[in-house]
Amino acid sequence: MHDQLIVIDGLQYSNWNRAIFKQLKDGGVTMVHATIVYHEQIRETLLRISEWNRLFEQNSDLIMPVKSAADIRTAKQLGKVGIMFGAQNCSPIEDDIGMIEVMRELNLMIMQLTYNNQSLLACGCYEAEDSGVTRFGKQAILEMNRVGMIIDMSHSGERSTLDAIEISQRPIVISHANPNSFHNAKRNKSDEVLKALGESGGLLGFSLYPFHLKNGPDCTLTEFCDMVAKTADLMGVERLGIGTDLCQNQPLSILEWMRNGRWSKQMDYGEGNKDNADWPRPLEWFKDSRDFPNLTKGLQARGFSDKEVAQIMGQNWLDFFEHSLQPS
Amino acid sequence: MHDQLIVIDGLQYSNWNRAIFKQLKDGGVTMVHATIVYHEQIRETLLRISEWNRLFEQNSDLIMPVKSAADIRTAKQLGKVGIMFGAQNCSPIEDDIGMIEVMRELNLMIMQLTYNNQSLLACGCYEAEDSGVTRFGKQAILEMNRVGMIIDMSHSGERSTLDAIEISQRPIVISHANPNSFHNAKRNKSDEVLKALGESGGLLGFSLYPFHLKNGPDCTLTEFCDMVAKTADLMGVERLGIGTDLCQNQPLSILEWMRNGRWSKQMDYGEGNKDNADWPRPLEWFKDSRDFPNLTKGLQARGFSDKEVAQIMGQNWLDFFEHSLQPS
Repeated sequence: MHDQLIVIDGLQYSNWNRAIFKQLKDGGVTMVHATIVYHEQIRETLLRISEWNRLFEQNSDLIMPVKSAADIRTAKQLGKVGIMFGAQNCSPIEDDIGMIEVMRELNLMIMQLTYNNQSLLACGCYEAEDSGVTRFGKQAILEMNRVGMIIDMSHSGERSTLDAIEISQRPIVISHANPNSFHNAKRNKSDEVLKALGESGGLLGFSLYPFHLKNGPDCTLTEFCDMVAKTADLMGVERLGIGTDLCQNQPLSILEWMRNGRWSKQMDYGEGNKDNADWPRPLEWFKDSRDFPNLTKGLQARGFSDKEVAQIMGQNWLDFFEHSLQPS
Repeated sequence: MHDQLIVIDGLQYSNWNRAIFKQLKDGGVTMVHATIVYHEQIRETLLRISEWNRLFEQNSDLIMPVKSAADIRTAKQLGKVGIMFGAQNCSPIEDDIGMIEVMRELNLMIMQLTYNNQSLLACGCYEAEDSGVTRFGKQAILEMNRVGMIIDMSHSGERSTLDAIEISQRPIVISHANPNSFHNAKRNKSDEVLKALGESGGLLGFSLYPFHLKNGPDCTLTEFCDMVAKTADLMGVERLGIGTDLCQNQPLSILEWMRNGRWSKQMDYGEGNKDNADWPRPLEWFKDSRDFPNLTKGLQARGFSDKEVAQIMGQNWLDFFEHSLQPS
């Protein structure tokens, strides 16, 4: 069945190269939302885009840029892996609302309003207090709505997320996180947030990052699929997708960059700690993109219908993109 | 008496030129804390500094840079006007804690953690909610303490200001604001904040910007000096100075830049409104820097002793700088 599916990964941040693109293709992935920046500002974001342009040029037999929902169907048809650009922070717009449209013109399709810390737009999930969406943030959300840039609140605080769902005139996403009811973590989400997200037509991508899972790297596929089933009861199966948060081939220095950016003089260990500072051990049943068929099998075994499996594995993401990427 | 005083203006943002430097000298001003940036980021801040370097070169008979408290005494001795650089926002450090020391090396001596809006460090007084000092903000305050850069909370929210007073290991300032008890405005400060500021050894500079005054441009010198006297009772006279917030020779476009930066697509009118969008009419008794002697006379008439007048007009600022500009 897996080969027939549109398979969409709602978030990866790998150290991209031809071998990784090959794994995505081997795993039957139609499209991946690729994080291009964490803390990079405008000039650095342009550098990342130029690096991607070179990757597209050198690997045009394997990958293609995704600028619309139609491009995803084209990728499936051509047997290529579609790449959609996203930012995990609002740093690519710096302090300038005009940069939202500029970045969208450069095919930045998804942007988080915050990455763990407080930003100019909202608050991250690692701050002690979350004051919600700011004055700039309110305008930025409406501008993102206007140009067709998707709002992602994966790393935001509870209140900011609820604010964004309410303020945004188009549905938003939490591209890579899990329910707190499954595993209580700063990065996971309350039932209140998930319900509001579902009711507003938004989408949740389930994370396979061990820090977001019950029992960490020892979480079983069965437990994972049970979580999916429970969340389907809460939000509706049509509101669910996958966002693996796979960070392949990345050195520890990149994890430190993600956690510390340029803001910290001390070492911040994020979801880890001093004695557990490195990348987590990967799941046995999801080591890299070649293991996507395991997810399909797991969901089938859990009793999801073929249609539901197709929805979760990518169709819901595709439907969401169908209505989210056009300027309004 | 005025000629004998060390006169310090705790904040001006004028469109600097030789005529304005001459007015400062004519008004007996020993030193002015000059805002060099509002929303400017690193590259633009360097541009502003280079413009100042040219002003210093071309007006070396009138002005000199202030890099220490000793420089202020030298300026008095030489009959020159000392210029101390300050930033009204944390934009000159962007997202990088390392830029605090870099900017301090470039003689940025004072920096606000926020300008009206939420920043990466704290919250501004125009946001609906103030979540206090952030993770980055806590580290930034300690770094500013370390390198001898003064923390200014003039445009910050209540909670962020109380947080900053508590977190900072060195006294901080509110360089240009007035008590809310005198005139209730978002930019003015509660007695709670002023008391905490005074008890921590901090300093308040009274603002002469009409939006911060009772009856706006019609506020009398007597009313102003009454406010000073009342605040002396609250905080102690040694905690008081002047911070005129004089914005001379600036076009409306600069007021719009201050209010809107690059974050707003709509026109934000700040302390004004649609029907009152322009610079406020100046006070009759404080039109420009030549009117500083009026303040001296007003304070004398209000019954302050010569020593107290000298303290308020500049000695308190000088004493504060004596202990604040050295790296710790």
